[in-house]
Order: sequence, then C-alpha cells, then structure tokens
Amino acid sequence: MIKARVTVTLKDGVLDPQGKAIEGALRALSFSGVGEVRQGKVFDIELDTADRARAQADLKDMCERLLANTVIEDYSIAIT
Amino acid sequence: MIKARVTVTLKDGVLDPQGKAIEGALRALSFSGVGEVRQGKVFDIELDTADRARAQADLKDMCERLLANTVIEDYSIAIT
Repeated sequence: MIKARVTVTLKDGVLDPQGKAIEGALRALSFSGVGEVRQGKVFDIELDTADRARAQADLKDMCERLLANTVIEDYSIAIT
Repeated sequence: MIKARVTVTLKDGVLDPQGKAIEGALRALSFSGVGEVRQGKVFDIELDTADRARAQADLKDMCERLLANTVIEDYSIAIT
C-alpha cells in the first residue's frame, strides 16, 4: 500500500481572502512580524498498489481531474 | 524573513466526511485501488524575523490558539 500526500495551494497572484482573514486574526492576537498568510489544502490518500510509478501517474491524474482547479491552483505530490 | 508551512490534519479516529466524499468521487472517476482519503489544511506563513527558535515558538503558539482545534486536529510545523 502506498500513502501519498497531495498539497494544493493557490497560485501566486490569486487573491486569498481566507489567508488575509487569518493574517488579520494572527495580528489581532498580538503576534508581531506576521507577513503574508496563504491557505491551501492537503489530501492524504492511500492507494492499494505497490507500483510507485503507476501511483504517481494516478495521483497526477486525480489532481488534474478532481483535487485541484489548475486554473488558479498548483499541486504537489509526495509519496511516502 | 522566515517562511513556514503549517499542516493541520484531523486526528486518527475523527470522522472526515469531506475525505469520504472525495474518496467516493475518485472511485466514481474510475480510479482503482483508492483507499482512505483524509483532508487537511495547510497554511503558508511569512514571519518577519531571522530568529528561527523564536519563529518556531510563535508558530506553535499560533497553532494552539488559532490555526488548529487541538481537540480533534494535529498540526506540524516546517520552517523552510
């Protein structure tokens, strides 16, 4: 069995109101020196195969078709 | 400036309906061998300091106070 972590983040330049809200909340909690905050998503996926190359290809396909909106989001795949 | 990535995931045993929905959607898209899927959050945070120890302590504090619900979520901090 293969475990993978897919991380989906907004592309640079795409507005992130949720990140901005967290940034404001951290400052309101008196954390000093907080710069930009961006929020993304992470998916921990178990795949019932031992073929890492096949898993990598499947995961890429999952990102393109479901997990990420590639117009505004980037994704990265890490197989553990 | 320090850049950090905070990853917040549900603890084992905590129900994850969103993950289950993604699991179902991946199977519906004919991906075979999909096991459990769990969804989490990721925060990319810029800190205006050069003190890594201080940053680590601040980030832990941010997780405990705002970013994670430590009753049901785990967090990990990676400073890059």
